[in-house]
Amino acid sequence: GFRESFLDLHAIDQLGIFDTLNASDRKQIYTFLTPKEFADIFQEMEYEQQLEISKELDEEYLAGITNEMYADDAADFIGQLPENMRDQVLETMDDEEASEVEELMSYPDETAGALMTKEFLSIKATDTVRDVMAFLQKEGPEAETIYYLYVINDEEALVGVLSLRDLIINSHDELIENLMSTRVIAANVTDDQEEVAKLIEKYDLLAAPVVTETRKLVGIITVDDVIDVIQEELTEDIGEISAARGATDENVTAFQAAKKRSPWIVMLMVFGMITAGVIEQFEGTLEEIAILAAFIPLIMDSAGNTGTQSLAVVVRSLATGVLDKKGVGKTIFREFQTGMMIGVASAIALIILVSFLYGNPMLAVVVATSIFISLSIATVVGTIFPLIINKLKLDPAIASGPFITTLNDVIGLLIYFSIATSLIQYL
Amino acid sequence: GFRESFLDLHAIDQLGIFDTLNASDRKQIYTFLTPKEFADIFQEMEYEQQLEISKELDEEYLAGITNEMYADDAADFIGQLPENMRDQVLETMDDEEASEVEELMSYPDETAGALMTKEFLSIKATDTVRDVMAFLQKEGPEAETIYYLYVINDEEALVGVLSLRDLIINSHDELIENLMSTRVIAANVTDDQEEVAKLIEKYDLLAAPVVTETRKLVGIITVDDVIDVIQEELTEDIGEISAARGATDENVTAFQAAKKRSPWIVMLMVFGMITAGVIEQFEGTLEEIAILAAFIPLIMDSAGNTGTQSLAVVVRSLATGVLDKKGVGKTIFREFQTGMMIGVASAIALIILVSFLYGNPMLAVVVATSIFISLSIATVVGTIFPLIINKLKLDPAIASGPFITTLNDVIGLLIYFSIATSLIQYL
Ligand SMILES: [Mg+2]
Ligand SMILES: [Mg+2]
Ligand SMILES: [Mg+2]
Ligand SMILES: [Mg+2]
Ligand SMILES: [Mg+2]
Ligand SMILES: [Mg+2]
Ligand SMILES: [Mg+2]
Ligand SMILES: [Mg+2]
Ligand SMILES: [Mg+2]
Ligand SMILES: [Mg+2]
Ligand SMILES: [Mg+2]
Ligand SMILES: [Mg+2]
Ligand SMILES: [Mg+2]
Repeated sequence: GFRESFLDLHAIDQLGIFDTLNASDRKQIYTFLTPKEFADIFQEMEYEQQLEISKELDEEYLAGITNEMYADDAADFIGQLPENMRDQVLETMDDEEASEVEELMSYPDETAGALMTKEFLSIKATDTVRDVMAFLQKEGPEAETIYYLYVINDEEALVGVLSLRDLIINSHDELIENLMSTRVIAANVTDDQEEVAKLIEKYDLLAAPVVTETRKLVGIITVDDVIDVIQEELTEDIGEISAARGATDENVTAFQAAKKRSPWIVMLMVFGMITAGVIEQFEGTLEEIAILAAFIPLIMDSAGNTGTQSLAVVVRSLATGVLDKKGVGKTIFREFQTGMMIGVASAIALIILVSFLYGNPMLAVVVATSIFISLSIATVVGTIFPLIINKLKLDPAIASGPFITTLNDVIGLLIYFSIATSLIQYL
Repeated sequence: GFRESFLDLHAIDQLGIFDTLNASDRKQIYTFLTPKEFADIFQEMEYEQQLEISKELDEEYLAGITNEMYADDAADFIGQLPENMRDQVLETMDDEEASEVEELMSYPDETAGALMTKEFLSIKATDTVRDVMAFLQKEGPEAETIYYLYVINDEEALVGVLSLRDLIINSHDELIENLMSTRVIAANVTDDQEEVAKLIEKYDLLAAPVVTETRKLVGIITVDDVIDVIQEELTEDIGEISAARGATDENVTAFQAAKKRSPWIVMLMVFGMITAGVIEQFEGTLEEIAILAAFIPLIMDSAGNTGTQSLAVVVRSLATGVLDKKGVGKTIFREFQTGMMIGVASAIALIILVSFLYGNPMLAVVVATSIFISLSIATVVGTIFPLIINKLKLDPAIASGPFITTLNDVIGLLIYFSIATSLIQYL
């Protein structure tokens, strides 16, 4: 029947169908599916939709859903609820489930503790393969993953790990002790989520166990949630390069987007008044040779683009961990050399272009020399700035592309107008 | 002994130790580890290191390694070798392994076929759970993942899928037919790797099967390789936003970096000559009121930053698939509204700042009006440009941040100087 073929679908596809239903059809679904069955759909929704749907459900059914959700997804949902609803849901839930959710909500955002879930399987070193197989038959359906089995001692400390593969290729009488690996790769509950993502990426894991300071096993982080972290961090990085931090979200109104993005633009504009001040200092030079203004954009854009390239190199190197291997000094020196080489290429192109288009070789020399010097400096600024921010653990947002660009504008225009002013009698 | 505790380490950590050895110690390792054991380390290396190490190995040992590597990693390595070495390795390898590698090398870059590997397990619908468990005990150690079992028919077409979890929680006499899901989420061998990544991300899979047009099962793609694809695509996206496409690699010399990056800078510079041309048209205006030049950077940077924000929104929306859901028209309109609001905020800030700092309210009005108009347009340019490129399936590099910035510079400066020129008697 419909029920069977609906439940045969992946939860994501069930949600796809659910999304097309009107209010009265949705009501049907709630009577038609058990809380456990609907939990699978519910935990795939975004918070906004979860909140809306919650309002259509009676208290018992909603508590049933949150009991059956994976603890990490339940905590994400409940943690965002308005306080009165949150308390009510937690009270109606089973005590054990509620306390798991409360534990997860207690860890700071973006830590391993906040990302992990509680549905892991732990076994004893003294179990046999047969014991564990029997345990899996019973507990397997509830666990988030059964492909890694974590071995704990009497103090619940993590002492070993065994993959399901290792289990099933061995004889039923073998002791876990003899099969487990004692070198367990684990995250600490206070680790930054980015560190956990790097760990799982480096070792190609499907999940990582999370332990406290005393090695007590308290949760697992699964690879699907790590992929979401990578996407989140990536959005952050792109936001930093483009001064749109926290503002690349599509699911907001124009007003909300403007509210998040305009402070950046206005702040950068105020900062940009410094550039205006620099040019103002050279008003005398400009009054004599107005054509100098024509190359302001060229100097600015070239220095800005070159600095942003260096920034992109550093941002990627920090994200992938390459920088730690290579060393900071080497990177800065390489970028400086690269800047000089790009500077030479650009200067040659400019001498030809400006001489040809403006028939003024001396102007060409001024522009080309300025470009060479400012590009060499721009790469260093683009490299050092984000590194300092990262070292001092300041908010990386202030290392964003536009800030570096504005800094490079000021330096580039100072160089340009200084050279032009000192050579004014030849122009 | 040392051998046991070394082999007990994760391959990545074995590589970490191997990296510290000198040439003669490395020679020891090659006699000390079987090709199969060394293959685990070898497949974690970057190509450059693999090539170097290959030169230290005898033909037989190297062929042994490539026989034992996962087919995808073997194909990545062998595919990059110089032709004479490639042919020699393939000839010395086992026929079956060599032909798998040759198959993988035959698929175009960045497709599912090029990303997949051959070590998957396939079973029959008529098998019992007992049959499959026995099969796993034998074949499990060689497979890349045993956690999904793919059910094929007599034509080798994929007809079902079963997780190892589903298998072990059921009775040994049960037929696979009754346990398998017939709605298999699969990638086509010609799919773009980015599509496969989205599929695995969407359904939280550990692996996806890859089929031909006739549904013949030819490989699997595992989640660890998908994470690498996401990182690769992310590097591409950041390169596009920062005009450093293909040039954020840390592992190159300054000269190689400059060779890749300077064409971008020079090309943008040539394009930037248009901006110079625009300003040149207003040389007369500038000769009268030189201070107008002071606001060139402000107009440029604000329009550039606002356009890049819109670009970042579109790039992220395309990457996460949100855009398909929301629709293009809605996104453009929202960005336009956002641009007007950011424009109003910026204009107000400027009227105050410029009046106060320059004591010239009319100049303030000219600058503020220009900012309002150019920011409203800049968001639309930043949104439409990458969408057109994406729609026409052109190289997205030409939609990169700096191109949009230059376009917005030209528009912004045209507006600014036109308004200033028409109001010149009041300035
Ligand atoms: Mg639960
Ligand atoms: Mg969480
Ligand atoms: Mg990896
Ligand atoms: Mg999930
Ligand atoms: Mg989860
Ligand atoms: Mg973070
Ligand atoms: Mg980050
Ligand atoms: Mg092989
Ligand atoms: Mg490949
Ligand atoms: Mg997912
Ligand atoms: Mg692989
Ligand atoms: Mg691609
Ligand atoms: Mg892409």
